Amino acid sequence: VAQAPGLELVGAVDPAPALCGRDLAALLEMSLPARVAIAPALDELLARGRPDVALHATGSRLPEVAGQLEQLVAAGVAVVSTCEELAYPFQRHPELSRKLDAAARGAGVALLGTGVNPGFVMDKLVVTLMAVCDAVEHVRVVRVVDARTRRESFQRKIGAGLSRAAFEAKSGAGALGHVGLAESAHMIADAMGLPAERRLRETLQPELADAAVQSAFLRVEAGQVAGLAQSAIVEADGVERVRMEIAMVLGAPSPHDAVTIQGSPALEMRVATGVPGDEATAAVAVSCAALVRELPPGLRTMLDVPLRPPWRGAAR
Amino acid sequence: VAQAPGLELVGAVDPAPALCGRDLAALLEMSLPARVAIAPALDELLARGRPDVALHATGSRLPEVAGQLEQLVAAGVAVVSTCEELAYPFQRHPELSRKLDAAARGAGVALLGTGVNPGFVMDKLVVTLMAVCDAVEHVRVVRVVDARTRRESFQRKIGAGLSRAAFEAKSGAGALGHVGLAESAHMIADAMGLPAERRLRETLQPELADAAVQSAFLRVEAGQVAGLAQSAIVEADGVERVRMEIAMVLGAPSPHDAVTIQGSPALEMRVATGVPGDEATAAVAVSCAALVRELPPGLRTMLDVPLRPPWRGAAR
Repeated sequence: VAQAPGLELVGAVDPAPALCGRDLAALLEMSLPARVAIAPALDELLARGRPDVALHATGSRLPEVAGQLEQLVAAGVAVVSTCEELAYPFQRHPELSRKLDAAARGAGVALLGTGVNPGFVMDKLVVTLMAVCDAVEHVRVVRVVDARTRRESFQRKIGAGLSRAAFEAKSGAGALGHVGLAESAHMIADAMGLPAERRLRETLQPELADAAVQSAFLRVEAGQVAGLAQSAIVEADGVERVRMEIAMVLGAPSPHDAVTIQGSPALEMRVATGVPGDEATAAVAVSCAALVRELPPGLRTMLDVPLRPPWRGAAR
Repeated sequence: VAQAPGLELVGAVDPAPALCGRDLAALLEMSLPARVAIAPALDELLARGRPDVALHATGSRLPEVAGQLEQLVAAGVAVVSTCEELAYPFQRHPELSRKLDAAARGAGVALLGTGVNPGFVMDKLVVTLMAVCDAVEHVRVVRVVDARTRRESFQRKIGAGLSRAAFEAKSGAGALGHVGLAESAHMIADAMGLPAERRLRETLQPELADAAVQSAFLRVEAGQVAGLAQSAIVEADGVERVRMEIAMVLGAPSPHDAVTIQGSPALEMRVATGVPGDEATAAVAVSCAALVRELPPGLRTMLDVPLRPPWRGAAR
């Protein structure tokens, strides 16, 4: 945000005792035009003045963060959130979607979920490609991530270092895995025009290490869990139309992103080495922050966003 | 258009004696809900009633088609055009851009240039990718087209079958080559935030056939021109920032589209075999026709378009 022309960083909130009250410029080791002290709570930040846009990154599950979103929207603040379930919340949380949409419309601001995934690699990019097809019979999206390149919390959430039994226990409790695959699948399915009467199946399984693998944060012995593989498959009228596959594994060979469209024309797209998750999530959120005030008020999705970088040149 | 839900085909114009007056359904060999006779002129079509949107595909050079665009806009019709120079007309035609923008704003409709290229492969898709980068130092876009897959007029405009001397004469007169590379380069440069004081260099050269090559429409002997290669390079402050390269050759080996972004993160994207031009141009124009009435009035570009297919599903 500090580097994007047209955006000005005016506040920050974090309740962590180690962070609140600290000067953001010092924490980021960069200079900012004005001092920004990290507020301990949203109320306190909003009491200082209303920002135009909030970048919200506090949790993956919509019911857990909906109160924060409602507070921002009620204050007339447009919101770009990395909450994975907000990226396309209509199927998993229809009631909450309607409520947030009504609140945002009432306040005259847009509320948008984005990120690298969901939000870009496995949905927005796919939908953008589909727009040059006359017809689309089937879409397959594959993302393979070498989790060694990701932050520690990411490496933990894929179960790296667990035994198979510990993995099964944790995944049974819903504590492991990527959140957002179903959201991406529904975004694509809607963009394909599939009927609401569709079937979504999801799978999640551990990937075991063949040999020991080490990251900056943890070590996985041979036979332990190195990560996981998930899929989400959409069928309509008994026919498979969308297949999403993601593997997030410490030391995964050939990380990449791939989109295969069976249609007219058929298209095969590949991003070599894959779009790096943490860095790209920050960048796409900033790009969206520069755009969100152009969107009509209400709960919006990446389907509504004319995605572009925030640096709009001087020539127009 | 006839197959896209939400769109209804209500008219067609073509002054060609072999076409005007004919029934479109018969010509397309498909059934349409109502009879559509091809009108010989735009006046006549507009006299029958005002359509919401016009799909305009009559020429590559903006000054040659601007009168048609003005007539449509003045009648209150939103326009999606495949005119290559309309895709990003601000640098080549600043006056005409202002005039068309004012006319469209005055009429309360949007006017948009699109297509596979310019409009998608070498610009919109690139800008979409750049939105997940923090910073972009350099962008290289390569498109290699095997012209055997394209229509006859395309094969002629790349000089296939000419001698080298005939090629030089025709290209000197501006009668050969791809129109739109500079437009794509400027769209990317603006999205990168490059200053208006930039330098654009363009090159065009013939590609000679090593061996005889045959298409459905013509034959090229060894040593004759099989197609051409063009480039457009943007420099700002003395540094190359954008490099666009397109080769359109009868029998080109390994046709593909590639985007290489030097930045953070660095990204390398490839569409195997490339996006097929004629089919994808028709599809993206229809996708935009379904979207153009959501755009603010005025002269718009693909930077403004939340590109997606026209089939919006039932779930929202």
